[in-house]
Amino acid sequence: MAITGDQRLLKRINRMALVRLVRGRPGLSRAELAADTGLTKSTVSLLVQELIDEGWLREEEVLVTGAIGRRPTPLRLDDRRLALIGAELGVGILAVVATNLAGEVIAKANQTVASELSANDTLSLLCQMLEDVVREVREADRVVLGVGVGTPGSVQESSGILAVAPNLGWRDIPVRDWILKSLHAAALGDIPVFVQNDADVAALGEVEFCSIGVGDPLLFLSLGVGVGAGVVVGGRLLLGRRGFAGEVGHIQLQSDGPTCSCGRRGCAEAFFGLQVMLNALQSAKLELLDVSRSEEFVQSLLRTAGQRLGVLMHNLWTTLDPGLIVLGGPSCKLGPSFIDAARETFQRLANEAGLEVPSVVQARYGELMIPVGAAALVLHKYLQPI
Amino acid sequence: MAITGDQRLLKRINRMALVRLVRGRPGLSRAELAADTGLTKSTVSLLVQELIDEGWLREEEVLVTGAIGRRPTPLRLDDRRLALIGAELGVGILAVVATNLAGEVIAKANQTVASELSANDTLSLLCQMLEDVVREVREADRVVLGVGVGTPGSVQESSGILAVAPNLGWRDIPVRDWILKSLHAAALGDIPVFVQNDADVAALGEVEFCSIGVGDPLLFLSLGVGVGAGVVVGGRLLLGRRGFAGEVGHIQLQSDGPTCSCGRRGCAEAFFGLQVMLNALQSAKLELLDVSRSEEFVQSLLRTAGQRLGVLMHNLWTTLDPGLIVLGGPSCKLGPSFIDAARETFQRLANEAGLEVPSVVQARYGELMIPVGAAALVLHKYLQPI
Repeated sequence: MAITGDQRLLKRINRMALVRLVRGRPGLSRAELAADTGLTKSTVSLLVQELIDEGWLREEEVLVTGAIGRRPTPLRLDDRRLALIGAELGVGILAVVATNLAGEVIAKANQTVASELSANDTLSLLCQMLEDVVREVREADRVVLGVGVGTPGSVQESSGILAVAPNLGWRDIPVRDWILKSLHAAALGDIPVFVQNDADVAALGEVEFCSIGVGDPLLFLSLGVGVGAGVVVGGRLLLGRRGFAGEVGHIQLQSDGPTCSCGRRGCAEAFFGLQVMLNALQSAKLELLDVSRSEEFVQSLLRTAGQRLGVLMHNLWTTLDPGLIVLGGPSCKLGPSFIDAARETFQRLANEAGLEVPSVVQARYGELMIPVGAAALVLHKYLQPI
Repeated sequence: MAITGDQRLLKRINRMALVRLVRGRPGLSRAELAADTGLTKSTVSLLVQELIDEGWLREEEVLVTGAIGRRPTPLRLDDRRLALIGAELGVGILAVVATNLAGEVIAKANQTVASELSANDTLSLLCQMLEDVVREVREADRVVLGVGVGTPGSVQESSGILAVAPNLGWRDIPVRDWILKSLHAAALGDIPVFVQNDADVAALGEVEFCSIGVGDPLLFLSLGVGVGAGVVVGGRLLLGRRGFAGEVGHIQLQSDGPTCSCGRRGCAEAFFGLQVMLNALQSAKLELLDVSRSEEFVQSLLRTAGQRLGVLMHNLWTTLDPGLIVLGGPSCKLGPSFIDAARETFQRLANEAGLEVPSVVQARYGELMIPVGAAALVLHKYLQPI
């Protein structure tokens, strides 16, 4: 871990420490920041002025109370001048949002795409959407800090190459460079582009915009056709050696369980992947013509699947000791039988050992969790300078 | 994450970056360090001189070759002047080692203790051993950098309090403060003391002394009566919200599996915890008077247990994507039936999905893995300044 030698690094660390502090406790004054960081007041004033000039922080209005002496000016994140762009490069879906520093969506666009579309054609469509959104927020006088992209599969973080995405059927796609060149060719300048796995960016959306300072480690479970996890530990994504960490859909829950699409048996995804459940429901409905019996069967099937999800939550809790578990993805819409059964099983296993479970919440951004998370990836890269 | 404001932090970062660089590539010169870090040559010279004076680095002898010009002086870790003290505070066992910066054991002591001994009496015994070893290395003119302690259960890192240790039957024991006071009372001065979970320190022993720069994340599986994991990601221990991360002995491998000592069913430990396996072997031997049949039964039992270990390795690999898996602890001595079956099952599951497994190796320090790991904890604390 080579460190650049001059003082720029320390300045960057200190600048971003100030932004993080103000974000966590809006209303802090320069004097309080100096006390909290150990920086001198003059250094804090200098850095805060820079951050105000660049659109990171703003001063709050102070009520004049008639009291004697100058009141310290409260600082907060400036949500009006910078923009983060986030994109979902998904299976059959492209979505782009722009958010402010607080994660509020200020522009969005989405379109479905044919799943047989080539990687090149899909990226061309995505770039067109990105260009439109970048122009829109710039017309509203915002400065674009960067573009984040969330995509299924395994991403090589340093290069922004999508290494393997089985559900897209792609391999070795240079997503970052493609978008960089495309934005440059559209005369939009050199906008930084960051690419990461979709469950990972969804986890960052929660960490950077919702649960600031809460729930470390944070475990985000993305529940859809694929089942994956994004884990943030000590403010950093847990990526693994090749970016494959969090492939928890292929944890074996039962050695003699059903065969999974990956070729193994008893994987979590083989029990409660969305397509697996839909297939089971469909065959059940076809067989059960009596509607009430069918409904009962459906609920029982969802409960059984949910119990397996509860075991997965338990196993990941045992491994990672998360402070917060967030559930997101389309399977969350399958209703209480599925999610409640998962929570109950998790709680029961913890009770059996006399242990307390952490909070389990639903993803804040629902259907936008990946594009908003991708916007959070941009913020994450700025706020984590080393 | 408040940052201290002055330049001391940057200096610490740079100093330890230099130590890490020289450790990873012995023989580096000051000029190469300057090139690698971006520090100026004069800063590097200043810091290297400090590190030499303090016993971290030393200059290698340079062969005089007759060539013209001054040769750059190669630098390496100084293994002769500093000492790290590590202790195992275990179930029925106390062990203390001193190592040099390279993890070579330069002094050791151990004793068994009655498991019914109180926490206070056990800590008194341990402190006596620590004092003896500290005196021994100081008599050999070494400077003691600190004392590390590895202990089963969950440790609150900031306070050094052993929060819960079911296998010791202890709760809320202020291990760090006890040792600090005891060393101080013995007129040994203020030696820094660090306490951490035993599987965690064992992982650090591998990271700091053996597999430097290799295998990130590193997953250390400690296989004994208890089954636990130490995980090092990006040079940091994965501890979890309350220090409970890595309790992987209680991952459920089979929902209808045997009941575990923790109260849950189908835990990894209920399949291949050492006591569970010994109990099963004993009852088998009692029943099977024919020796050859008995031997066959024993091997089959170990193989079945090993297959479950293989599933655990697979599930943790899927979650964490480690670059290296290290197996340690007394169960590793059960022979090839157990460990080979684990490796085979892991390999088979990976093959079924067309994936490559990471390297799986045995712990370098064998029976000393916890005390040497505890010594590594001290080095880890110095080398990781932020």
